[in-house]
Amino acid sequence: MAERNLNLKLTPVEEALSKYLSALDGQLVPKFEIISVEESLGRVTSAPVCAKLNSPHYNAAAMDGIAVKALITINTSESNPLELIEGYDFINVNTGDAVCEPYNAVIMAEDLIYEDNGKKIKITKSVFPNQHVRHIGESIKIGEEILSAKHKIRPVDIGMLLTAGITTIEVYAIPKVAIFPTGSEIIDICASNLPMGEVPEAGKIIESNSRMYEAQVKQAGGEPVRFATIPDNFDLLKDVITKAAAEFDMVLINAGSSAGTEDFTVQVLREIGEVIIHGVAMKPGKPVILAIVNGKPVIGTPGYPVSAFLSFETFALPILSVLTGRSIKPKQKIEAVLSEKITSTPKQREYVRIRLEQLNGQLTAFPLTRHSGIAMSLVKADGFCILDIGCECIEAGETVSIELIES
Amino acid sequence: MAERNLNLKLTPVEEALSKYLSALDGQLVPKFEIISVEESLGRVTSAPVCAKLNSPHYNAAAMDGIAVKALITINTSESNPLELIEGYDFINVNTGDAVCEPYNAVIMAEDLIYEDNGKKIKITKSVFPNQHVRHIGESIKIGEEILSAKHKIRPVDIGMLLTAGITTIEVYAIPKVAIFPTGSEIIDICASNLPMGEVPEAGKIIESNSRMYEAQVKQAGGEPVRFATIPDNFDLLKDVITKAAAEFDMVLINAGSSAGTEDFTVQVLREIGEVIIHGVAMKPGKPVILAIVNGKPVIGTPGYPVSAFLSFETFALPILSVLTGRSIKPKQKIEAVLSEKITSTPKQREYVRIRLEQLNGQLTAFPLTRHSGIAMSLVKADGFCILDIGCECIEAGETVSIELIES
Repeated sequence: MAERNLNLKLTPVEEALSKYLSALDGQLVPKFEIISVEESLGRVTSAPVCAKLNSPHYNAAAMDGIAVKALITINTSESNPLELIEGYDFINVNTGDAVCEPYNAVIMAEDLIYEDNGKKIKITKSVFPNQHVRHIGESIKIGEEILSAKHKIRPVDIGMLLTAGITTIEVYAIPKVAIFPTGSEIIDICASNLPMGEVPEAGKIIESNSRMYEAQVKQAGGEPVRFATIPDNFDLLKDVITKAAAEFDMVLINAGSSAGTEDFTVQVLREIGEVIIHGVAMKPGKPVILAIVNGKPVIGTPGYPVSAFLSFETFALPILSVLTGRSIKPKQKIEAVLSEKITSTPKQREYVRIRLEQLNGQLTAFPLTRHSGIAMSLVKADGFCILDIGCECIEAGETVSIELIES
Repeated sequence: MAERNLNLKLTPVEEALSKYLSALDGQLVPKFEIISVEESLGRVTSAPVCAKLNSPHYNAAAMDGIAVKALITINTSESNPLELIEGYDFINVNTGDAVCEPYNAVIMAEDLIYEDNGKKIKITKSVFPNQHVRHIGESIKIGEEILSAKHKIRPVDIGMLLTAGITTIEVYAIPKVAIFPTGSEIIDICASNLPMGEVPEAGKIIESNSRMYEAQVKQAGGEPVRFATIPDNFDLLKDVITKAAAEFDMVLINAGSSAGTEDFTVQVLREIGEVIIHGVAMKPGKPVILAIVNGKPVIGTPGYPVSAFLSFETFALPILSVLTGRSIKPKQKIEAVLSEKITSTPKQREYVRIRLEQLNGQLTAFPLTRHSGIAMSLVKADGFCILDIGCECIEAGETVSIELIES
């Protein structure tokens, strides 16, 4: 039986993260790979990308119409129209066709008066050289920077890279994240053949965090690899995490980070690596473990769904962001009036789940239940009201800033 | 040779879209499928999803500690401590363990004084029945709505569905979108073996829009199927689009929607289906074709990258949104001061690409080149300043609302 980890020393959130990143410094190194541009949506450039071709790579008609020699139109006007003969004075061009010597300007179809079944054309305006001609390199010049480094590739970027003659690019590789559910009491209803609605045994807990983590890792641009549940067995856990830390870029261990008598995780991590932080001054999410094994980040997270979610967002996401090159989007915030007083332990940062509703024309923040076990509150919540360390309460009627949960 | 489509009648954007959706009414029907919850990230529920199990499904310890009979602690205090004997007065419990008769309350580990090597425990406070016990159904009750219909599934939802005993759900099926690049002048540098940097022939245009569309369709929750370029051949185009309209949920045909002499698309679509709209009062993006073939939406879009991008966003995205069940996120907007006067044709809605920069402490909107061929401007742009129909100009120094391009 493992010893209970009572009285965790709680480190403030930012301090915990910065200590962890410092400890990982030099070990948390992104990998890169070369991929096809057409498969690069959402990937992040490792370096600036510069054009390999001019665009257009020839002088091109910018309009459908005819290519002409500008010089001969010089005195043309309504009162002095000019007749042009196909093949001699003009050639028909569509948008994108090459405009070659001796032609140097395009007149758009809308401005032409056709005669003699299209063999002759009358115009009533002069044109200047290069009119409606896109010049070599007008859109993109060889060597021009198309994308900066650390740019997350959008659909328009894919189009532009190809136009600039670039078919492959170097991007951050997708980090592989091992996800371990742990606990002898855990059951996996995805893999089990339990018919829907059949009640599991008392004391058996349906495992769901590892599936949530799979989705969170995917959303963050990583590749999740979820393992079967590890029962509470010190040697087994030790063996499995050691192997994962050798093979994966990051390891998540869910549950087993608290003070339960079977919570081996922290002891295992101390034996095979270094525990940088155990216990963070945040609620929910307090008993998080930030460790390093074989130079890899290994994070132990609490079992309650809300705690599991918040500890991923707070600690795993910044680590993944280093590996994927993706910047973390600042959370959208909105101001609302608090419907009722909320209190907090001033020693911790508390995340109070909030449901937003219009009440008498005013956006109102309704606090949802704060027990981290009431998981539905996270699904029902629109965002969090964050009471930072030192804050004991916020009164009803006060205007608060709500951090919105992404949909 | 196809006739030139001169003088398109331009329909305002909203009118064009609403006419198209009306014409599609009853034919644009989403399909549904049942999938595993753990693979449902980003999918959209077809109907409300209700819990199949209570959570917890038994009375569970909410803390690590001991389970006791609350009644025997009734007069306990600092001055009147109570000694408890393992197996008789208490059992050890971890968070999540079942709390069964005769026990009905939990005392957390932090409040226990261990004696006799843990066989006896002293407490100094009374406890109330149900203290630190999570009751059957406290988090989730059988039949309770977990997710509403048309809900896009997030990582937290996956966790919650499993906790509620739900392993499969019905979601909107992923619409299949056929993408056809067209034009005899087009080259596919992804498929070609052209070494990077080798300049293609004059008049040959590097195809990129179909790859941008693949990415746009993916981002919108559809499955793109890109076909090889169709040369300008009326019968071939007709044959291919007819087949695609039978097999796919939506068809995109890029280029061939303008007034070029080889622009067969609109004529093909008139022959095999109904052209609802040809020409929209927007710039760039004017020569768009909104058609219906075999009850399926078939959209012909212009060739210039910016026009191709905007016509997808304006017309293909709302159609896809019906098929995927995903709501279209309202564009984020930001106010900025215009750096220079911009003018527009009042007959069209014009999208002016804007680069945002701080200038003398003020967010300033710098208009980028407006020729739809200068594709780089879309990559460099932070957003659009939209000059609606009727607007002839906006003066330098005026505050404008910029619609941000998603990163």
